[in-house]
Amino acid sequence: MSNLMDIIKNRRSTRAFVEGKLPEREKIEKIVEAATWAPTGMGKQLWHFSVVYNAEKSLQLAKAVSKALNRGEDYNFYNSPVQIIVSYKRDEKHAFLDGSAAMQNMLLMAEDLGRGSCWINQIRDCCDEPEVRELLTSYGVPKDHIVICSAAIGYIEKETPAKPRMENTVSFND
Amino acid sequence: MSNLMDIIKNRRSTRAFVEGKLPEREKIEKIVEAATWAPTGMGKQLWHFSVVYNAEKSLQLAKAVSKALNRGEDYNFYNSPVQIIVSYKRDEKHAFLDGSAAMQNMLLMAEDLGRGSCWINQIRDCCDEPEVRELLTSYGVPKDHIVICSAAIGYIEKETPAKPRMENTVSFND
Repeated sequence: MSNLMDIIKNRRSTRAFVEGKLPEREKIEKIVEAATWAPTGMGKQLWHFSVVYNAEKSLQLAKAVSKALNRGEDYNFYNSPVQIIVSYKRDEKHAFLDGSAAMQNMLLMAEDLGRGSCWINQIRDCCDEPEVRELLTSYGVPKDHIVICSAAIGYIEKETPAKPRMENTVSFND
Repeated sequence: MSNLMDIIKNRRSTRAFVEGKLPEREKIEKIVEAATWAPTGMGKQLWHFSVVYNAEKSLQLAKAVSKALNRGEDYNFYNSPVQIIVSYKRDEKHAFLDGSAAMQNMLLMAEDLGRGSCWINQIRDCCDEPEVRELLTSYGVPKDHIVICSAAIGYIEKETPAKPRMENTVSFND
């Protein structure tokens, strides 16, 4: 059990996962449970969390996304075996805010449980491409949802160094 | 020091703050420090956190927002004496996602430090109205930024009951 500030500061965007090694299912369940407790505008909670707990299926999704966005053959979600796809009912005003708050809960919980995570932004840009949408549907994403983002989760293969924080991003007005 | 899941589950949207009672400055500094450690798309961190640490100025902003959005005379950010305005450089693709992740860090940190918080969404809808923008500028919001949201912070006057979570928002695909 760590101090919250330590968890927040130690979280990294893992960009090298151990290939094919699935994290413990109960850890994934805790991570996604944390997501569901984020706040939502007007308390709507019109989200869905589709857990892809399968390295092959995760890679298949990466390949479809890569094809749709011309990202090249190496695009593989950093070999992460688990994706937790955050989707939200289409045309909802607070979709991106609510989904991102849920996402942050997941990244912090993954850090607290000793697993790596990375915020994946590409799926939202191509979630309506037929080949991608077909996979998303088969992985549990509701048809009337857009994808906000996805949490890539797995064992950490290589630690990411801390990124320096920008200066002068905070001001006080007393 | 609490367990992360407890912090996540115990966080509430406070809608009744103790009027005029400023939280300890070091707690506000920790809350905003937590924000700066959220992830950002491409590591850009093109955000700014403008802390309004003054009950009168906070109310003044609420009144300007209320006027711009026709919210009526009672609109007062629930009497919160502190606003932490999250803004982001205009026209940045990941602005709402990055800003919301930072926001969630702040809400969790406020909970961990025993202070109430509420996610305020209204400012973004009127941040370019002249009267609102003038105040925002005087409170430190960069002129080339849009407002993502604001964290209302203060002592809790009245506890908010836990909101039930929607059912069937998680699916597993093995």
